[in-house]
Amino acid sequence: MMFETLEVGKQIKPGDFDKLEGPLREQLLRAQLELAERDYPVIIVVAGPDGAGKGSLVQQLNEWMDPRWIETNTFWEHSDEEESRPFFWRFWRSLPGRGQIGIFLGSWYTRPAQAAIAGSMGASEFSLYCKQIEIFEQMLADDGALIVKLWLHISHDSQKSRLQDASVHRQATQRGSNLSYELHGTYQRTMEVSEQLILATDSSHSPWQLIEAEDSHYRDLTAGQLLLQAMLNRAGREPREGGADSAREEMLVEGQPTVLDSVDLSLKLDRDQYKMRLAELQERLHHLGWQAYLEKRSTVALFEGWDAAGKGSAIRRVTRAIDPRLFRLVQIAAPTDEEQAHHYLWRFWRQLQRDGRCTFFDRSWYGRVLVERVEKFASPDEWQRAYSEINQFEQQLVDHGIIVMKFWLHISPAEQKRRFHAREQTPYKQHKLTEDDWRNRARWHDYEIAVDQMVSHTSTRHAPWTLVSGNDKRYARVQILETFCDKLEEALNKK
Amino acid sequence: MMFETLEVGKQIKPGDFDKLEGPLREQLLRAQLELAERDYPVIIVVAGPDGAGKGSLVQQLNEWMDPRWIETNTFWEHSDEEESRPFFWRFWRSLPGRGQIGIFLGSWYTRPAQAAIAGSMGASEFSLYCKQIEIFEQMLADDGALIVKLWLHISHDSQKSRLQDASVHRQATQRGSNLSYELHGTYQRTMEVSEQLILATDSSHSPWQLIEAEDSHYRDLTAGQLLLQAMLNRAGREPREGGADSAREEMLVEGQPTVLDSVDLSLKLDRDQYKMRLAELQERLHHLGWQAYLEKRSTVALFEGWDAAGKGSAIRRVTRAIDPRLFRLVQIAAPTDEEQAHHYLWRFWRQLQRDGRCTFFDRSWYGRVLVERVEKFASPDEWQRAYSEINQFEQQLVDHGIIVMKFWLHISPAEQKRRFHAREQTPYKQHKLTEDDWRNRARWHDYEIAVDQMVSHTSTRHAPWTLVSGNDKRYARVQILETFCDKLEEALNKK
Repeated sequence: MMFETLEVGKQIKPGDFDKLEGPLREQLLRAQLELAERDYPVIIVVAGPDGAGKGSLVQQLNEWMDPRWIETNTFWEHSDEEESRPFFWRFWRSLPGRGQIGIFLGSWYTRPAQAAIAGSMGASEFSLYCKQIEIFEQMLADDGALIVKLWLHISHDSQKSRLQDASVHRQATQRGSNLSYELHGTYQRTMEVSEQLILATDSSHSPWQLIEAEDSHYRDLTAGQLLLQAMLNRAGREPREGGADSAREEMLVEGQPTVLDSVDLSLKLDRDQYKMRLAELQERLHHLGWQAYLEKRSTVALFEGWDAAGKGSAIRRVTRAIDPRLFRLVQIAAPTDEEQAHHYLWRFWRQLQRDGRCTFFDRSWYGRVLVERVEKFASPDEWQRAYSEINQFEQQLVDHGIIVMKFWLHISPAEQKRRFHAREQTPYKQHKLTEDDWRNRARWHDYEIAVDQMVSHTSTRHAPWTLVSGNDKRYARVQILETFCDKLEEALNKK
Repeated sequence: MMFETLEVGKQIKPGDFDKLEGPLREQLLRAQLELAERDYPVIIVVAGPDGAGKGSLVQQLNEWMDPRWIETNTFWEHSDEEESRPFFWRFWRSLPGRGQIGIFLGSWYTRPAQAAIAGSMGASEFSLYCKQIEIFEQMLADDGALIVKLWLHISHDSQKSRLQDASVHRQATQRGSNLSYELHGTYQRTMEVSEQLILATDSSHSPWQLIEAEDSHYRDLTAGQLLLQAMLNRAGREPREGGADSAREEMLVEGQPTVLDSVDLSLKLDRDQYKMRLAELQERLHHLGWQAYLEKRSTVALFEGWDAAGKGSAIRRVTRAIDPRLFRLVQIAAPTDEEQAHHYLWRFWRQLQRDGRCTFFDRSWYGRVLVERVEKFASPDEWQRAYSEINQFEQQLVDHGIIVMKFWLHISPAEQKRRFHAREQTPYKQHKLTEDDWRNRARWHDYEIAVDQMVSHTSTRHAPWTLVSGNDKRYARVQILETFCDKLEEALNKK
């Protein structure tokens, strides 16, 4: 899930690449030069499936910067020396010194990934191993190290075609001992294990960056920008607020596609079909609501989306089908004083209903990585670590048996404009349109980037996002109701 | 192991208590008042076996500070409300707001401790649970919370006598649902589980403080001082360097016993006995060294101790018995430039020998919590988090099959003085006595405190300390050799 949402076709045209490469290179070199005077090392982990271009990226980074002060580590050959010492010894001895850069092309992530995919490492050994990784990275971060972890992703199809390429084959063969696991048709399993690995090791001190690697120009430039930004932030040259995400924005300013572009906004339902399907689905949901109550299974469903995307009216179509004693609808607006005085997740924890009930959130904890990010109410540190905090939170809900559903209501900018004007002209709807709405609209692009990253970081197997095609309200409502019924039914049957 | 080393009989006389209580109370109140203006909460966890006086301590803290701004949480009764929501919901809803203090008398540590002791929670569930705790505390710490975790310890005998006390019994009965697990003769198991729990959750952002709780005055004053110091440090009122441990020193300045006082320094061996035992043990060790090699089991043995305690000559007695091809002796002095440029553990990792060899460290990674602490080369943050870093490091060695032995060579101050003077008067020994030695001697007391805390924090089941009675060199050497042989033999046989 997580990875599929990355497959949106981001790319940089060769001409643009040439324009952007020069300044980036210059800045990277300068950052590297300054690093030499600093008392911390930079540790870069490059990971991802075979064929994603990890090697080429590392080559590019070496080209952009001064390779004399970069050490690239691979760990292809397992030496006797390594085998006869504790596993992490090989990484300890390869760590860069303060002021230096170490790139880990193979790393502490390679073994658990390969072993779990090959089936030779069980779940509890895997999680123990993840714990070791965390301890290791925490130690380095506590000591001041800047850790930049880049995960390159490519689709199954691209991987297949790339791995058929003779040169890649040759390279894989030359490495010899390196298990080319993906060659054996285990792409899906690779993605599953990778997601687990990322979720278990995504922390505030060493977060993962996910990069779509279909296009090598986009891949290299984005990786370079993320690295540069991390180095500048760490050096404190840029103010922390607002600085951290400028690299990504820069990259996307040129009109990169986002996950939202994968939503087909032309989908429609005519009135008759709509009425029929609505009645049918509401009837179904009514029964499922009671069944869930009897089986003591809770649902947490949250709705996010553009202003005027129709969240409110869609939620009403869902709640109308459920006995009011079985659900609560929580509207999330600005936090109260008391809420403000706690961790931002506190206000959501307190709203959880007892087993067997539904809790609907009209806007949610995702405000942290949407409005709070875009409006800079949260610092980059805060919203960046929120991805893993949110994943952990939702994991706890799911572990308790709660069914978590997340809907993003998507509409086009043109459709939003149409609806805003309609509101202006309809007296009883005028109150729904505020200054804020126009202001948010002007930030459409910032929100688009925030949504794109939110979806790729939090569309987990345990709590995936559903992107709703919202230009046609009827279609959107039916899509939501149907998804809701399907997921609820599936969860109840699985139990 | 960890806990036994705490049982040294620390206590405060009633008169001293009265003298110290007033100023402490005043400062705590002031710190609390200032906290109200700050944008972070203080979360105090009080844990330990039944009978250790957790309740009395909490009462004392409430008395010292303004109870209107402290909330004490117990979680004795498990409510339906709690049971029908994710487990951590109960803790989330009880969290103090920014500027406030929350005391957790029962906490997220209660369930895993009780369940693991009762045998109803397996190892993998236990470690999953520890991971949950870590995530929870990390989230709170990232959000700014100051987390102070106090572990009160009492010996088995004291527990027995206290739990026979009628009033305690009544209290336990009144609580009703609270499982008084220790009443059922499971003290040893309780200690085992507690050690695991502490090791798994001792982190740089929320470290455990271990307090000997035999004497209620010492217990309360120490807890109060630790809390005060943590609050002052967090508020930044005191410079970070050198400030953090002044509370503990203050407490101990009055001549509290330390774990070193448990060493019987009167032990002696006469020359004949010594010669016989030495020859016998060296012969035994010689064979064990080869056996370990053949079985590919490594040993890491480190030696720490007072200046002139006889480390060097003792190590020679050990190495002489082992084939030189099977061991390496590493002398730890000031780090090289290259070592300086890495994490402080890097220099020790790089010295690890291949499977089947012995590595002897004359001084070791414990320098971090000894000389670097006392001489303030390491900041309080750095040496405090070193306890868990070291425990993790040694755990990795043990997990790989390495046998870890740690010796502290203890002598009395008088004996040290005698040896210093002897060195002054023996020409070929004069070079062994430096200015530093006299300076260190003047800091005897600071080192005593550092050793005491080092031993209680790092005398783990997987790598316990051996305290060597060193006033008689012959006795010390035989004790070391014998311990070495016994441990090696035991490990080889267990394999």
